[in-house]
Amino acid sequence: MKAYEALSKEELLQLHTQLLKEYEDAKGKGLKLDMSRGKPSIAQMNMEMGIMDVLGSVADYQTEAGTDCRNYGLLDGIPEAKKMMAEMMGAANADHVIVCGNSSLAIMYDAVSRCMSHGVLGNTPWCKLDKVKFLCPVPGYDRHFKITEHFGIEMIAIPMREDGPDMDMVEELVSTDEAIKGIWCVPKYSNPQGFSYSDETVRRFAALKPAAKDFRIFWDNAYAIHHLYEDEQDEILDILSECEKAGNADMVYEFVSTSKVSFPGGGVAAVAASKANVDEILKSMTVQTIGYDKINMLRHVRFFKDLDGLKEHMRKHSQILRPKFEAVLKVLNSELGGLDIAEWTEPKGGYFISFESMEGCAKEIVAKCKEAGVVLTGAGATFPYGKDPKDSNIRIAPTFPTQEELEAAADLFVLCVKLVSVEKLLSGMR
Amino acid sequence: MKAYEALSKEELLQLHTQLLKEYEDAKGKGLKLDMSRGKPSIAQMNMEMGIMDVLGSVADYQTEAGTDCRNYGLLDGIPEAKKMMAEMMGAANADHVIVCGNSSLAIMYDAVSRCMSHGVLGNTPWCKLDKVKFLCPVPGYDRHFKITEHFGIEMIAIPMREDGPDMDMVEELVSTDEAIKGIWCVPKYSNPQGFSYSDETVRRFAALKPAAKDFRIFWDNAYAIHHLYEDEQDEILDILSECEKAGNADMVYEFVSTSKVSFPGGGVAAVAASKANVDEILKSMTVQTIGYDKINMLRHVRFFKDLDGLKEHMRKHSQILRPKFEAVLKVLNSELGGLDIAEWTEPKGGYFISFESMEGCAKEIVAKCKEAGVVLTGAGATFPYGKDPKDSNIRIAPTFPTQEELEAAADLFVLCVKLVSVEKLLSGMR
Repeated sequence: MKAYEALSKEELLQLHTQLLKEYEDAKGKGLKLDMSRGKPSIAQMNMEMGIMDVLGSVADYQTEAGTDCRNYGLLDGIPEAKKMMAEMMGAANADHVIVCGNSSLAIMYDAVSRCMSHGVLGNTPWCKLDKVKFLCPVPGYDRHFKITEHFGIEMIAIPMREDGPDMDMVEELVSTDEAIKGIWCVPKYSNPQGFSYSDETVRRFAALKPAAKDFRIFWDNAYAIHHLYEDEQDEILDILSECEKAGNADMVYEFVSTSKVSFPGGGVAAVAASKANVDEILKSMTVQTIGYDKINMLRHVRFFKDLDGLKEHMRKHSQILRPKFEAVLKVLNSELGGLDIAEWTEPKGGYFISFESMEGCAKEIVAKCKEAGVVLTGAGATFPYGKDPKDSNIRIAPTFPTQEELEAAADLFVLCVKLVSVEKLLSGMR
Repeated sequence: MKAYEALSKEELLQLHTQLLKEYEDAKGKGLKLDMSRGKPSIAQMNMEMGIMDVLGSVADYQTEAGTDCRNYGLLDGIPEAKKMMAEMMGAANADHVIVCGNSSLAIMYDAVSRCMSHGVLGNTPWCKLDKVKFLCPVPGYDRHFKITEHFGIEMIAIPMREDGPDMDMVEELVSTDEAIKGIWCVPKYSNPQGFSYSDETVRRFAALKPAAKDFRIFWDNAYAIHHLYEDEQDEILDILSECEKAGNADMVYEFVSTSKVSFPGGGVAAVAASKANVDEILKSMTVQTIGYDKINMLRHVRFFKDLDGLKEHMRKHSQILRPKFEAVLKVLNSELGGLDIAEWTEPKGGYFISFESMEGCAKEIVAKCKEAGVVLTGAGATFPYGKDPKDSNIRIAPTFPTQEELEAAADLFVLCVKLVSVEKLLSGMR
């Protein structure tokens, strides 16, 4: 196909008329589709219904060590869940894992909240400082940025590359600015690109020499076992071990959850860190709660059993997810390939595709899609304060709709991309 | 029986020798009993196992309105759970209820944390103030006091009466000191006394005229439906309605949970408040989590159905709990009655008995019990900072041990009370 930039004004005007007609037709179809959030599909969730009744008789409600999961106790989670969640995130030491409720986001929120109110390992509480800053690899996960914004933390955007954040920039900033207290990372199958940090990136993270003693890496390993392919799987180094080797054992908090392994509304989440960090978290947690839902932890352990069980389960998920990603990518490639008006990622795992339109077009594309019945993540959401300086990034979440719905949604999406791009090119010609 | 005070030194010495011998014998029995925490017993928890498998087929995982509880969504909880929790706490408006995770303590912690970091309805965040104070009716719930202590909030003890806190003192302090931002209340079957606030007390709470615009009543209705008797049940006024009537709609947060209705490790908890408060909580919560465990909410609703179902279930609980309370009270009455060395409450509901020894004896009684194998709540725990100025209050939790264990534990307890009291009286004679 011919790149749009190479078209004459006349050709563009003609194309515009045609696209506009197609768009009006599409609007008439009354679509009502949602590609906005990384939600598992119904078919996918039906695969894990065994979790619901895996526990049978009263005796089943005891841990291997004999703790009754129905009652109070075990603030840090049941031992077998600690072990399984450690394996899931590739952490060496299950003792340094705390299993919590159903949301890793809530653990991250608590972590930031605790740093604000109580500080980190004896350092000044962040709320007492004039200025606290976080580094935010972009595009990134909107809900990370919402947490730091909520606490009035200044966010500095760091460009993401295929092998992770721009580490030259990270090293420079972290080592010189004491106000920089943290960085948000989704190291594997990143949200929204599906990129995974290279070994070099992880090692450079572990070897950081922060100006702030209480600098922490917030390592959200959300897609630790969420592969789309059996033969091509990204693997990343264990940040906890790498930090320990580099003499920076306390520099990282790692988060993980089964929200997209079992149920978004009823999974389990965990945090792992050094002994000093874990002790500090537990000290706060013992005030906060008597304990999390151990029955649900036990359900998960009994159903998945171990890492092999988790992997086998995720292989089944991939059979549902892979065709969805491929369907969207097929439409993107066949409809936008060669037009030179967009770029997109082709992830090997995770829950998203990152799409880059021409500058200044993302908001308009999302608006046009919405008008015709397809909801996308708000343009800008992948940037701190919801502001994409280039207005070009769109996060595509192909996991929830059915195959059929997805194809209809992708068709409309590429149509809107073309239409808005042509309008952009034409406006530049006036 | 003859009051100990009326005994001569010789008689006391003789009694001491005898009690000491009994205590040494008791130590030889190798008891290992726990009356320290308000934990449901195994027999009690076995009554609610139906919760576990009440959900069957995939279709069962939908709310009445058709929301799939397995997936993300419904930040404020499923509508039928909001309704049930509202009924449970006697709140008029289910729209003003948010159903959360398994712990009401965690909701209270979050509430205080949010007031600290973000302030209340536009007022200065408490962390920015020089001084924040809370009123703490004593003896009270240790974990309430731990939360305020954790955030550096100064605690002022308020004496508890049989009809609630000393309201003259509460009114005086709240109306004159702008630094007083809150009060902890367990209004029904209070922890540890089992007292319930009179209608007048509730109305005086609702009519408070706080100096601080952001003063909040933390109304922990933990034992809302936890009656021990069918014919004698305490009922309290709905604080939310009373506050609204008094023009103080925003002055209260009410908390409730099923920890002692279903499972301490796997129940559901909720908060209720005015619309303005609920909106503010949700604004923070939307940053904190994508949602709580709706599957577990649905399990609870399907199992208990409604308030009648909850009440009927709690009637069954009372059949297990009542004999336990009565067994302990029987030992207290028969062994300590008339000795004039102690007082105790005789609750009609809740999870505790409050025991008052002679001044300066509580720590020693708890220590002696522990030495002989019976663990009680640490003396002082029922006071702010863990310091009981009179060293006289002991919280007895008779709910977890079996009837047989309880009788053995109570026997040892009264023995220790006698022994320590005699030693106290003798030391006064030197």
